[in-house]
Amino acid sequence: MKTIQEIGELAVAAKRSLAKLTTEEKNNILVAAANALRENSKIIIEANNLDVANAKENGIKASLIDRLTLDLNRIEGMADGLEQVAKLPDPIGEVINMKTLPNGLTVGQKRVPMGVIGIIYEARPNVTSDAFGLCLKAGSAAILRGGKEAINSNTEVIKLFREVISSMGYDENIVQLIEDTSRESSTAMMRMNGYIDVLIPRGGAGLIQSVIQNSTVPVIETGVGNCHVFIDESADIDKGVAIIVNAKAQRPSVCNAAETLLVHKNIAADFLPKAATALREKNVELRCDEIAAKYVGDCVPATESDWATEFLDYILAVKVVNDFDEALEHIVKYSTGHSEAIVSENYTNCQRFLNEVDSAAVYVNASTRFTDGNEFGFGAEIGISTQKLHARGPMGLKELTTTKYIIYGNGQIRK
Amino acid sequence: MKTIQEIGELAVAAKRSLAKLTTEEKNNILVAAANALRENSKIIIEANNLDVANAKENGIKASLIDRLTLDLNRIEGMADGLEQVAKLPDPIGEVINMKTLPNGLTVGQKRVPMGVIGIIYEARPNVTSDAFGLCLKAGSAAILRGGKEAINSNTEVIKLFREVISSMGYDENIVQLIEDTSRESSTAMMRMNGYIDVLIPRGGAGLIQSVIQNSTVPVIETGVGNCHVFIDESADIDKGVAIIVNAKAQRPSVCNAAETLLVHKNIAADFLPKAATALREKNVELRCDEIAAKYVGDCVPATESDWATEFLDYILAVKVVNDFDEALEHIVKYSTGHSEAIVSENYTNCQRFLNEVDSAAVYVNASTRFTDGNEFGFGAEIGISTQKLHARGPMGLKELTTTKYIIYGNGQIRK
Repeated sequence: MKTIQEIGELAVAAKRSLAKLTTEEKNNILVAAANALRENSKIIIEANNLDVANAKENGIKASLIDRLTLDLNRIEGMADGLEQVAKLPDPIGEVINMKTLPNGLTVGQKRVPMGVIGIIYEARPNVTSDAFGLCLKAGSAAILRGGKEAINSNTEVIKLFREVISSMGYDENIVQLIEDTSRESSTAMMRMNGYIDVLIPRGGAGLIQSVIQNSTVPVIETGVGNCHVFIDESADIDKGVAIIVNAKAQRPSVCNAAETLLVHKNIAADFLPKAATALREKNVELRCDEIAAKYVGDCVPATESDWATEFLDYILAVKVVNDFDEALEHIVKYSTGHSEAIVSENYTNCQRFLNEVDSAAVYVNASTRFTDGNEFGFGAEIGISTQKLHARGPMGLKELTTTKYIIYGNGQIRK
Repeated sequence: MKTIQEIGELAVAAKRSLAKLTTEEKNNILVAAANALRENSKIIIEANNLDVANAKENGIKASLIDRLTLDLNRIEGMADGLEQVAKLPDPIGEVINMKTLPNGLTVGQKRVPMGVIGIIYEARPNVTSDAFGLCLKAGSAAILRGGKEAINSNTEVIKLFREVISSMGYDENIVQLIEDTSRESSTAMMRMNGYIDVLIPRGGAGLIQSVIQNSTVPVIETGVGNCHVFIDESADIDKGVAIIVNAKAQRPSVCNAAETLLVHKNIAADFLPKAATALREKNVELRCDEIAAKYVGDCVPATESDWATEFLDYILAVKVVNDFDEALEHIVKYSTGHSEAIVSENYTNCQRFLNEVDSAAVYVNASTRFTDGNEFGFGAEIGISTQKLHARGPMGLKELTTTKYIIYGNGQIRK
């Protein structure tokens, strides 16, 4: 097994050859990798069976085992994902803001690869394939460090990809898997300044916090979403019910699902009984403050910690607020800066919400579930950034690149 | 004296009111602050005299004392800088990439303030004024932590600014100085996740490395520049001499000054004697490899560490290379990714240099000294980023902002 240091050195060597590949060459690798997944689905599923058996033996909970499990459908999804990335426009090489200065220098910013991208993730083996595809298309070498639960699946998938790359005459180290799944390997990766240009954690709040606290390599923080929907006094009630049901229950396990519903007191009597009925039809447990409980009927009393919790489950905290400002203050206090929505027909309140809510995605009259690279039309997504540096919101190919200034001169010197 | 925690809380409270200020209001504060500097120059210089006296007592070296010293000219420079920032276009509020999705949602990215920006810097008190002006115009609250050498000057300048802000009816905590200049206050600042959105160190390599190693707040790495000029076989010799003399000696103490000269062996006999004469006229010490020494005559032998050193002085390392590729390999090995230049009339080599050198600014036939926000036409600069995340190269107002997605819907829910 290679050391982290060796993996870093191989990635740095590989990034230079990768940066020179044409779009066509990168696309050919992606298509070949997709075919390799399909042709070797049996071997991948065998490796995955080992992971699943180990997980069951270790008493891993059912929802995690579901995320871990690969079948023909999911492998087809991975292959299809790589082909989709091949079809996306290549972000590399674009030159922006090019202009000629008074002294005749021509200066522009050229979009170039990051170099080496590190991804630390948990139990989903499909992230292995997605991350490889996006990093490759963005022109960067990838160092992947998946969870120990998926190690057999990940090892098999990366082995396949590296064989494909090597057989096409390219440097297989444009993608590497860290097979050591100890905590030490993860920490070592976070300290690889000079080798890894950016580190992206994908997973639960614990993983993300650990990377933020320990990494000296620049990090893009992803994902934790304590998202709010605010039903303003003037809301269209049918739209409001549809939006909160969608935001909460269409897929509760993801970061853009709503966790708290705020309702203006003047619409609570009309809105909450209808919303409660619709949410209960989707088996959503309601945790209400005292006033909301009056309109909702049988429900769990909300505690202070409920306002701060990303349930990722069929649970919704519900609060009645006195006015727009109280809703705003609640969001300022508890939001993780992911996605928030207002449902309102009041022009000024809609504009204030868009201006004053400081989150990666701020919605008027739409579900928070749209915060997603595919929904926003990027074609693919490596994660959703909840930090303000570099990328904020869904990250597509462009967010995996950087720029450099290129300057064409004719002997200019500074005066 | 407030604790770091209290300062953080006050900044978070202040950022919300600051984000609502119009461009006109921000400009009025900047102009008033500039006038306050001029009107109180005597008090500022008195405070600065204390700092200078302390520095002399502590045996601080002359070049640092020069950076620390304020006189009427320098205070006018600070005031003028604030007025220049007032004249720059406001980056806040611009909406980019706005489009309507197939489902009717209208999605765009709105440029918004970072929130709270932390700046850690060393002995130059003019950074206090510059950083305040840029952060304010970019809509963010600033927490400034200057060096202990300048504490009296910084305290006086910030006191003035806060009085101006407060007298105009705004929250004075949009700018705060950390008056505790202990190492502990600096470390505490680096751990203020949730309060400070980005931390920018400005100073020497030691300070920057300390921030990178210890900060859990996202950092923009600035400044260290081991910059190279490569004289290719086909270079115009006069242009080459002018460029290396300018890049090295026009202002050797700054990060975009050249530190190593690489010369193609086939032009060395014609180029190096002329370059050496011109550089010696500027009192530049040459540290040469064996082959370069033959053409340069009396010089210091270069050691391995010279190739890796940012001299920031009238010293230049000189090496003769066999070909373009050897020059490229040398740059890959020793560059800090700041600024590199090729002097060449060969089209292919110029294009290869632009493509293959992985630095923030890559030049053809021009001096590396142009890597500067003012030279690039930004009007002002907070530093030069040598990292790949968020900003790369000179950072102006735009690089001090972030974006958020704003989404206008009409009841859309995700299918």
